Amino acid sequence: MPAVISEVDIQRAAARLAAVVHRTPIVRSRSLDAMAGAELFLKTENLQRAGAFKIRGAYNKIVQLPVAARRRGIISYSSGNHAQGVALAASLLDVPATIVVPTTIVAAKRAATEAYGARIVEAGTTSADRHQRAEELAAEHGWSLVRPYDDPAIMAGQGTVALELLGDVPFLDTLVVPVGGGGLMAGCAVLARARRPSMRIVGVEPRDADDTRRSLEAGRRVEIPPPTTIADGLRAVVPGELTFEIIRELVDEIVVVSDDEIRHAMRTLFEFTKLVVEPSGAVGVAALLAGRIASAAATGVILSGGNVALEALARLLAPPRGG
Amino acid sequence: MPAVISEVDIQRAAARLAAVVHRTPIVRSRSLDAMAGAELFLKTENLQRAGAFKIRGAYNKIVQLPVAARRRGIISYSSGNHAQGVALAASLLDVPATIVVPTTIVAAKRAATEAYGARIVEAGTTSADRHQRAEELAAEHGWSLVRPYDDPAIMAGQGTVALELLGDVPFLDTLVVPVGGGGLMAGCAVLARARRPSMRIVGVEPRDADDTRRSLEAGRRVEIPPPTTIADGLRAVVPGELTFEIIRELVDEIVVVSDDEIRHAMRTLFEFTKLVVEPSGAVGVAALLAGRIASAAATGVILSGGNVALEALARLLAPPRGG
Repeated sequence: MPAVISEVDIQRAAARLAAVVHRTPIVRSRSLDAMAGAELFLKTENLQRAGAFKIRGAYNKIVQLPVAARRRGIISYSSGNHAQGVALAASLLDVPATIVVPTTIVAAKRAATEAYGARIVEAGTTSADRHQRAEELAAEHGWSLVRPYDDPAIMAGQGTVALELLGDVPFLDTLVVPVGGGGLMAGCAVLARARRPSMRIVGVEPRDADDTRRSLEAGRRVEIPPPTTIADGLRAVVPGELTFEIIRELVDEIVVVSDDEIRHAMRTLFEFTKLVVEPSGAVGVAALLAGRIASAAATGVILSGGNVALEALARLLAPPRGG
Repeated sequence: MPAVISEVDIQRAAARLAAVVHRTPIVRSRSLDAMAGAELFLKTENLQRAGAFKIRGAYNKIVQLPVAARRRGIISYSSGNHAQGVALAASLLDVPATIVVPTTIVAAKRAATEAYGARIVEAGTTSADRHQRAEELAAEHGWSLVRPYDDPAIMAGQGTVALELLGDVPFLDTLVVPVGGGGLMAGCAVLARARRPSMRIVGVEPRDADDTRRSLEAGRRVEIPPPTTIADGLRAVVPGELTFEIIRELVDEIVVVSDDEIRHAMRTLFEFTKLVVEPSGAVGVAALLAGRIASAAATGVILSGGNVALEALARLLAPPRGG
């Protein structure tokens, strides 16, 4: 067990989150099981508040800040679901929030974040640009920085997804989790390994965003070129320091999927489970449908988010033009 | 309490269905609550096996047929979800099934029904055409007829939706149910009225498919011209005999919604709950968003089905051309 966080940190996070987040349902589909060749238990974090698991870590972080720090406010950076999760968590706790976003942010995502009452600051186009600007503003104003994944409180919050999943389906043999910066993967791995030491724990990355897979092979954190995968929530270029420590120790394997495999999974989920799942949220099912994960057994799959507009979904899943 | 079916019939149905159907989750969305001005508890029968509640009644009917009748086989008629529900129920019970469908059936719906192992017979374009052909084939081959709604076993099966909903949310003040032939409405009304006598029970029909509303006003079953609403599962032209008896006695009110209101509800459900809901399944939310149902209280809403293709959904929800 790594010392960064333990099962107890995740249980404590769950107590803090109990009245705040949805205990998202487990959805089953026998048609999907037949296609995947396994019994799938879909943990529907796409049905979570603000459309993704991110509120869990963000709330668990902000609620533990000292009163004076909460009064001053928090700052975060994100181009997607973390922004909305932080904005919602801060608004629930009445904490002033500022989010640094890329200058290229989609208008709908900006509006959704502002709707929760957060201030928006634009900075550059890369995660590094946003991180640097957030650090500057934090120092300047005395705001607390809410990182997207590399923080024990964030990881413990995200681990409550696995706590609920194993509470509902205690006999799981395999757990499949999307991997971006690694916060969800790390938190869930700690919980799952503690509860079921023999469980197979598998992370999934888009093929061109395989920084964690490469880092595991190299035995150290490796930086990759900026990915262009449609799974926009998983475009991290390097694993977190803390998340990588945990993943290296507890995760059995990282598998990768192509954008076409992600599209196929999104369509299959739409047709057979009636769930709207965004590209990043569908990588687990993509890996299973592509036969990348050897599992004929009870398999928990985290559908991490559902924030995709109808028009974008229709466009993403349209048959390729010209063949 | 009408004599046709009682709460006990629904409890017995639930026992038969326990290992067969999904206990579909209750989904909440605070954003949706704010728009509707009520606390909504969405009963997600769009996540049910075969994509709609229909398997409940069909299975409850077929499993109670005598062994000899089951061996001979069953026949049913439908242009939509009932066909798939019957086909799946028959296949689970190893009962040969024939479904009479319109000559105009969509290829995808025909394929989905055949995938469950049912034989397809085409007959005319109206429900009356299909019903007549099914009666003929039943007489000719000794097949048992599985009606879409006007049968105590079907109504009791559909009533298990409300049994589960009230089991999960016992403090509901209002129940909102789509009304086509009335099988779901009748079964749910019997259960809800027995459990919570003061509950407000509201049915919803598309504006041009308001046969039940007109029949209640007239005090007798009234036939209307064939509706053209996008809610293809609710295009009944006259209420069932048995369903109407129950609805007349137990339902407080029928409200109607326009196709545009249904479209708005489908888009809102997609964006804020990440659920794929077909037009017929969205009428309850449509009525609430349009302010047709006075309820500031705990309101159960049955999302009855999710069988709509992505392309059809995108087309249905596209902004109107030239306006």
